[in-house]
Amino acid sequence: SSKIKHVIVDFAIKAKNIGVDDPRRIVHSLKVALAITLVSMVYYLQPLYNGMGDAGMWAILTVVVVFEYTVGATLCKGMNRGLATLLAGALGIGAESFASLFGTTAKPIVLGCLVFILVGAATFSRFIPNIKRRYDYGVLIFILTFSLVSVSGYRVERIIELAHKRLSTILFGGATCIIISMCVCPVWAGEDLHQLIAENLEKLANFLEGFGGEYFRITEGDKPSLASYKSVLNSKATEESLANFAWWEVGHGKFRFRHPWKQYLTIGALTRQCAYHIEALNGYLDKKTEAPSELQKTIKEPCMKMSSEVGKAMKELGLSIKLMMHPSGSASAIHMESCKKAKEELNTILQTVMVGEHDISETIPVIAVTS
Amino acid sequence: SSKIKHVIVDFAIKAKNIGVDDPRRIVHSLKVALAITLVSMVYYLQPLYNGMGDAGMWAILTVVVVFEYTVGATLCKGMNRGLATLLAGALGIGAESFASLFGTTAKPIVLGCLVFILVGAATFSRFIPNIKRRYDYGVLIFILTFSLVSVSGYRVERIIELAHKRLSTILFGGATCIIISMCVCPVWAGEDLHQLIAENLEKLANFLEGFGGEYFRITEGDKPSLASYKSVLNSKATEESLANFAWWEVGHGKFRFRHPWKQYLTIGALTRQCAYHIEALNGYLDKKTEAPSELQKTIKEPCMKMSSEVGKAMKELGLSIKLMMHPSGSASAIHMESCKKAKEELNTILQTVMVGEHDISETIPVIAVTS
Repeated sequence: SSKIKHVIVDFAIKAKNIGVDDPRRIVHSLKVALAITLVSMVYYLQPLYNGMGDAGMWAILTVVVVFEYTVGATLCKGMNRGLATLLAGALGIGAESFASLFGTTAKPIVLGCLVFILVGAATFSRFIPNIKRRYDYGVLIFILTFSLVSVSGYRVERIIELAHKRLSTILFGGATCIIISMCVCPVWAGEDLHQLIAENLEKLANFLEGFGGEYFRITEGDKPSLASYKSVLNSKATEESLANFAWWEVGHGKFRFRHPWKQYLTIGALTRQCAYHIEALNGYLDKKTEAPSELQKTIKEPCMKMSSEVGKAMKELGLSIKLMMHPSGSASAIHMESCKKAKEELNTILQTVMVGEHDISETIPVIAVTS
Repeated sequence: SSKIKHVIVDFAIKAKNIGVDDPRRIVHSLKVALAITLVSMVYYLQPLYNGMGDAGMWAILTVVVVFEYTVGATLCKGMNRGLATLLAGALGIGAESFASLFGTTAKPIVLGCLVFILVGAATFSRFIPNIKRRYDYGVLIFILTFSLVSVSGYRVERIIELAHKRLSTILFGGATCIIISMCVCPVWAGEDLHQLIAENLEKLANFLEGFGGEYFRITEGDKPSLASYKSVLNSKATEESLANFAWWEVGHGKFRFRHPWKQYLTIGALTRQCAYHIEALNGYLDKKTEAPSELQKTIKEPCMKMSSEVGKAMKELGLSIKLMMHPSGSASAIHMESCKKAKEELNTILQTVMVGEHDISETIPVIAVTS
């Protein structure tokens, strides 16, 4: 029993930390609960129930599957669901009427063939990258609605009325989701993406600033701050899904409706490129244990200068992305200048090529273009 | 009109390529179409319809959302859906009876509060990593079923009969999915993971084997084959989802039921680590254009030997993973030996540290443990 208690306490602590880490998660849970409670009012209030009837079930179903963490994701799913239901409903009714032309015996066979062909084609289309990225959920709902409408049309008499009721409840549920997710403490995917890109640059900058000291064994004990760049290595999937959702979002705060979200992906890719090189640099930190050689003592000064100046320049760039200001003329150019000087100095000392030096020079032009 | 035609032809070619690339995608589409057509038979055949009635809708709904590309994913969703429906249905009926104790006026309020609390808690639990990884869909279905049952219980008289019918059709739909996905040309997530890991090792090996020649400008024109390692850099998400799905799969082919899938993730992480270093090495290929210096001519021989021997050793390891044989005593150890010799030779020539050399030495022990 003490073991069970231990597990429960452990679980509670973990859950608390997740909430404290990002309080927006708690707010999101409350928002979903609120939306479902509101929609289920359809059942409790007699006048509403008379209008919708059992189709109110579809409103609850829609809220559960459409309500997502970010506004963009909710809009994406809501729009997909609404449009796909409309399209598939119309096609389904069409298929049902078409099959009726063949008489009672052949009708189920014709219907079955139509369902088979359309479902197969729609499932296959989910493998096409462009469709998968933006309309995956829509295709799923299309398959669902088309088979439901065309098949149940075989049994239900007043299919138009059924379709009308179902569609209106789905729109009602979808609208509830979108309004609540946009008006009550909204979580914008675009803003998250913006922050993520700027923070990733900052993480790399922190590593570069600290690298010189760590490598030449001057500073001690602040190693954890250097490892934070590791998360940048695998940020691709997160960035891409955020950019996709941001595409659906209306303008908010500093962002216009058609903000160039794709540019963020370009910066993100360059940042990751840079992180790969840093990962290679990091390998040297673990390996080197022997006392510094004579050569290392000679190159120490320019190397440390180079690494810290690149770090400072990246920090400036991260900051200018965060504040959406043009970085030209700012401090980052000065840092790059002194970094180049240090590099030349280093080159005169030795002819061997260091890894870190060509990282930053390729990130600069793109960042200057954006923001 | 010629523009529209152009777009359509373009689209058709793209779709064809996707099918040719991996014919299992076409088979999958046909399997989904088959499953839905089979399940919709419920509506066409009178005796079946008499048994299920309109609840047959839930069978179609289940097939559409549960049928996934791999067997593991289908099993994961099917099990989640079945168990969550059972649990939430029971809880929903319980909540409904509990609320009835408070009299007709207070009942909707009590029900609303219960729904609010449980939905909020369940939504929050989806942020907990362990739950998200394996039971995310189950929690979603739990929320859906619980609110549907407890809320519609307010209006429907014979709720037990409704729940029974709905549950049996969901089980019917889920069973159809699982049987078809396992028996008709199954796509096992575990096997895909196995292949992916082995192929990733091979891609890195190809790069290393070709790197020496490319760097010292001996071979020309086969550059595309070297760039194939790039996909390894971002394979983390794919590997993790495959390993998750593989966890659900029953034994098949060479794999037992509880195959140590987690070990594949460890190998995958080391492979990626290695790919980061290779990415850094690759940076040198684009940069170097001037004629080789005197130093480079001196180190050329051992460097090329080292790189190609490491590549050969990795190829051996990839092969032994593919064939699930123990690599000890095989050719890879010999390659590593000659690589070490080349490295020592290089070290006597110059004291500077090359990047590539410590890649492979850390991958070996883990791979020896597995398979």
